[in-house]
Parts: sequence; structure tokens; C-alpha cells
Amino acid sequence: MTPLASLVDVLKQNTHFVIATHINPDGDGIGSAIALSLALEAKGKHTVLLCYDPVPKNCAFLPSAVSFRQPSTLNLSADDYKNYKSLILVDCNNLKRTNLHKVQNLQFQFETILVIDHHETPSDFGTHKWIAPEVPATAMMIYYLIRHLDIAITPEIAANLYAGIIVDTGNFRHENTVAEVLRVSAELASTGINPSFIYRQLFECWSKERFQLFKTALNSIRIYEDVSVIVITQALFAKTGTTYEDTDNLVEFPRVTDEIKISILIREVSPSECKASLRSKDDFNVAKIAAYFGGGGHKNAAGCTIKADTEAACSMLLEAIKKARANEWIL
Amino acid sequence: MTPLASLVDVLKQNTHFVIATHINPDGDGIGSAIALSLALEAKGKHTVLLCYDPVPKNCAFLPSAVSFRQPSTLNLSADDYKNYKSLILVDCNNLKRTNLHKVQNLQFQFETILVIDHHETPSDFGTHKWIAPEVPATAMMIYYLIRHLDIAITPEIAANLYAGIIVDTGNFRHENTVAEVLRVSAELASTGINPSFIYRQLFECWSKERFQLFKTALNSIRIYEDVSVIVITQALFAKTGTTYEDTDNLVEFPRVTDEIKISILIREVSPSECKASLRSKDDFNVAKIAAYFGGGGHKNAAGCTIKADTEAACSMLLEAIKKARANEWIL
Repeated sequence: MTPLASLVDVLKQNTHFVIATHINPDGDGIGSAIALSLALEAKGKHTVLLCYDPVPKNCAFLPSAVSFRQPSTLNLSADDYKNYKSLILVDCNNLKRTNLHKVQNLQFQFETILVIDHHETPSDFGTHKWIAPEVPATAMMIYYLIRHLDIAITPEIAANLYAGIIVDTGNFRHENTVAEVLRVSAELASTGINPSFIYRQLFECWSKERFQLFKTALNSIRIYEDVSVIVITQALFAKTGTTYEDTDNLVEFPRVTDEIKISILIREVSPSECKASLRSKDDFNVAKIAAYFGGGGHKNAAGCTIKADTEAACSMLLEAIKKARANEWIL
Repeated sequence: MTPLASLVDVLKQNTHFVIATHINPDGDGIGSAIALSLALEAKGKHTVLLCYDPVPKNCAFLPSAVSFRQPSTLNLSADDYKNYKSLILVDCNNLKRTNLHKVQNLQFQFETILVIDHHETPSDFGTHKWIAPEVPATAMMIYYLIRHLDIAITPEIAANLYAGIIVDTGNFRHENTVAEVLRVSAELASTGINPSFIYRQLFECWSKERFQLFKTALNSIRIYEDVSVIVITQALFAKTGTTYEDTDNLVEFPRVTDEIKISILIREVSPSECKASLRSKDDFNVAKIAAYFGGGGHKNAAGCTIKADTEAACSMLLEAIKKARANEWIL
């Protein structure tokens, strides 16, 4: 795959880049951004890694994860602000997904905005947009970019890219696990990184509390024909001593059963707002369901925010799925 | 990797092969055996696929799985028995592991016995033994063998080999997931097979009953410092309407928690016999624990049969682990 030529030109010509990723960042956003930063720095460029939210616990082990800044920990001089005229959005294609437009004290005046993303949700944002929904992970795009720029893939870069790939393919479980994903992963692994260690850090370092949350969630799972729904209330978070991060990948689990074709996870943010994660098997496009509620994602993995309590959100999602299946609106 | 030369010679010279794998066969045993059979048949050889137990449900989708015979469904003439003078043991290295030595009506008179296995447990059985414990899956050895014999890897062969690899690496999760595993998997995937479909058939086609068993098992998990124990009694199988097969990979799950370093699954066979599966993280060698009880396996994944009730077996295993850790016997 060849990266967008005009985007490559900007990367070659400019010297200072702010690399930002989406809110509630995951391994693909964090890993892709760090890998790009390390690669550009190897070419003598200057980069700032920026995210509205902190690096999640399960990504803290990634080489150079400590370089990530939140707006509150960003300490730039007036000169710095002048120098950083290029923004690169990674793993998202809209400033709204970064929340950075809401931050008051950022004094950047970006002249160029590059977008590198593999999400389907369209957006007009950016001066040079390289959007490839057919690529399983943004980390794959960064891999192609680094190769194109002829920059050596160090173990530090490889670990970050490998993390991005396994997060977005569910460690080679999802429908997007094509031969090329495995080929690139093999090349990354050959730099000497430890795939099993990276897997465990990202997916298998549950606290006792998280294990308890998982058990409670499974025990309270609701099945509506071939749709499963798990609801996590703030009360349950409090009772089990867990946080939002502890529900990572929980939505994947019900898919292990034959009968479940769509899995929904609803997390209460406040009494009048919740976040929904959707997963499907085969051809049912949950990105369209998420988009209906103002969210986005991929065919088999998507998410959205719903301004309602958890029970109302559950009803609304089930209703939308029912309508979509009845072809009352086109998926 | 180059296969054992004398074994390759026999495969080239002889024409009729019985290919057998171990009792309670898994994806690596079944997939490796089928792939080898398909490859040899492509060279004009005759093969019989034999296993004491039936092909497990989760492997039934594999191309040519229907070719597998149990002793009771083997229908050979006296001439056939004369022709099949070569036995190939796949994914085990001892006739005891196949249970075929206990079968009365088999009239084979094998002149040559080939062994292709990646298990550590040593054995004197076989005329040409190719045993490579450093290889993550027997399916990888069959891949090297097929390549060495210059036989085309069809999608049917690839699907069987891919299945073997992902079963024995826990779908690229375990410590044995090295770059070469990913490289070979990429090559297999490039034949046009569907990795996600194969993954789901093998790991994610749980029945409702199995899901219920899983939940019950998790709810009754016992934690002894960093060792978790799950006990499945015959009563629980009966209550949930499940069988032995429904406990596949259950032993893997408790490893998701940070605190658990060793996971034990004890399944009651009868009031005085149970089967134990053991999994560990990092350097603790559970194969040595299993070997102490007459079983075997790999450093991080092993199993054994214990002639005791489940509670006694649990105590014996915990005691053995304690002793091993105290260096009272060498691991």
C-alpha cells in the first residue's frame, strides 16, 4: 500500500508535528501515534504526542508511552507554539473525536492538518486526508508509511505497531485478519519483540476487581433472541471498585456463543448519558447503527453515545436493530 | 527447519500409511494428521486417518475431517491390512497416547513407525522419530515437511495447518508465538482461507449450555494465592447438559488476571479418577508437574490423569506445586 503522496511530502518538508489521537484512546491510537513519532524523530523531526485523555493502563508498557501529553501536562513555550504548525490526527479523522477543540489553553495555529485513519465514518476535516477503511488497523498504515519513508523499524516502533494491530484485530480473531495482517505482524515480530508479552499487557492484566466485574456482567447478561446486552451502571462500577477502562473488550465476549450475532455493551456515564459498544458477526453492519446515534466505527465493531438512561438506551438500540433488520432503513 | 531425512525417505518410498493421533484429539492433532494425509494423497499415496476418539465437534468443519476413522468405523479388507505397513504418529510420540494398543480388532502388522511430534515428553517408541519440542505446533512440522516434499499447499491443507497452529498457540496468545509462527500463518492465509472463520469454529461456537458451564465455573473458581483451581464434577456436567469437550480452553481463562500465575482445571472422570489441565505464565514449568503424575505437555501447558477424587487431586496438585517451588524436587 502506498501512502498519500501529498501527505508524505508534508512529512518530509515540515519539521515540527503535533500527533494527536482520539478520546478514550486504545492500543491502535496510542501505538500508531507513538510509532509515527519515533519514526519522525529518527529522521530528525520534532514531535509532540497529544491526547485529551491519559494513556490507558494497559498501554502504559508501550515504549515511549510516557512521551504522551494531555493538554494539562503540555508545557510549550510561545516559540514552540510558533514552530508546531502541523497537526497529524491518527486513528480518527475529526477534531471532535479528539476533544481538543474544547480545550481553552492550547495556542496552536495549525497551517497543515494531516489525517491518517482507517475508520469508515467520513469527515471533511484536514488538509491531507489518508483514509483507508479497508486497512484493519491504523498501525498498518503507519507501517506502510514508515516503510515508504525508508525508516528502520526498531523494536520500539515494532512493539507499538504490533500493539495497534492486535488491538484492532482482536489479536487476529476478527474478520479483518487477512494474510497481510499476519505478514506485517511477522515482520514486526522478527525485530525481536515478544508478541505474547504484548498480548498479555494489552488483554490479560486484569485486576481482581475487573475479574469480579466480568463475572457480575456475565451473570446479568440479557439475551434477546440473537442479541446480547450487558449493562454496566455507575453503581456496579462503584460496587466492584472498577472504572470504564475495566470494561475494555467486554463486549467481545458474548460472541463466543453460537446463538449471539450482535453483542451490545451499555455503560452508564451519568443518569442521562451512556456509551454503547456494538459488535456483530458476519454481515450485520453495526457501524450504521452507531452512526444513527451519532457514533461510528467499522462493520463489526462500532460505538456511540446515547443521551438517555441505560434502560432507555437499551430499548433504543434494540429498536434500531429491529428496524435495520426489517429494512425500514438501509444499512 | 529440515525434517528428519530417514523419515522423509520412508514417506517417499512407502505407499500406504496409517496416520494416527492422540486420544481426546485437538486441533493440532486432527489438523496435522489431515494435512499430512491430503499432502501424501496428492503424491499418489494411500492414507488412513485413525483416532481412538471421534473428531471433536469444533474440528468437524475442517476440510476432510470426515475422512477420520475410529477403530469401530474402520472397514479394511485383509489385503488392506497387508498393504498398510507404515504407521505415522502425529502430535504424540507413544502408542499409549493413542489408546490403539488397547483395541482388539485392529490387524495391522506395522513394519515402520514414524513419529512426528513437538511434545517434550520423551519416548522410545517408533523407528523414525522426528521430535521437535521447540516448534510451537505439530502443524508447523507438517508445514515444513510438505514444503520439503515440494507439495503444493492447497486451501484445504492450509486450513488444517492454520487450525493446528492457532490451537497450540492459543490463537497467537501464548509464549510460543514467535515471528516464524506468524510468517507461516501468513503464508497459509495467503492461500485464501478465512482465519477469522477458522478461529470462530475452533474457539467461539459455544452452545448455550457451554456458556452456562463457563459462568458456573467462574463463579466457583478457587484462588490459592497465585494459583486458581476450577473443578468440574460429573454432577455439574449433568446439571448444565455439557460434556468434557465443553471445557476446552476453560483452563486458559483465569490467566487473564494479573495475580494468577498457574491455572488448574480438574475434571471428574469418575469418583476415583480425574483429568487435570495446567497452565502457567513465564518460567514455571507445569509439564514437570504433569509428568510427576504420569502426564506431559509443554512448559506452560500440560495435563495428566490422577487416580483420586477431585478434592484429593486438587490437594495433590497444590502440594506438588508447593514442593516444586520450594525446590524440593527439580523442575
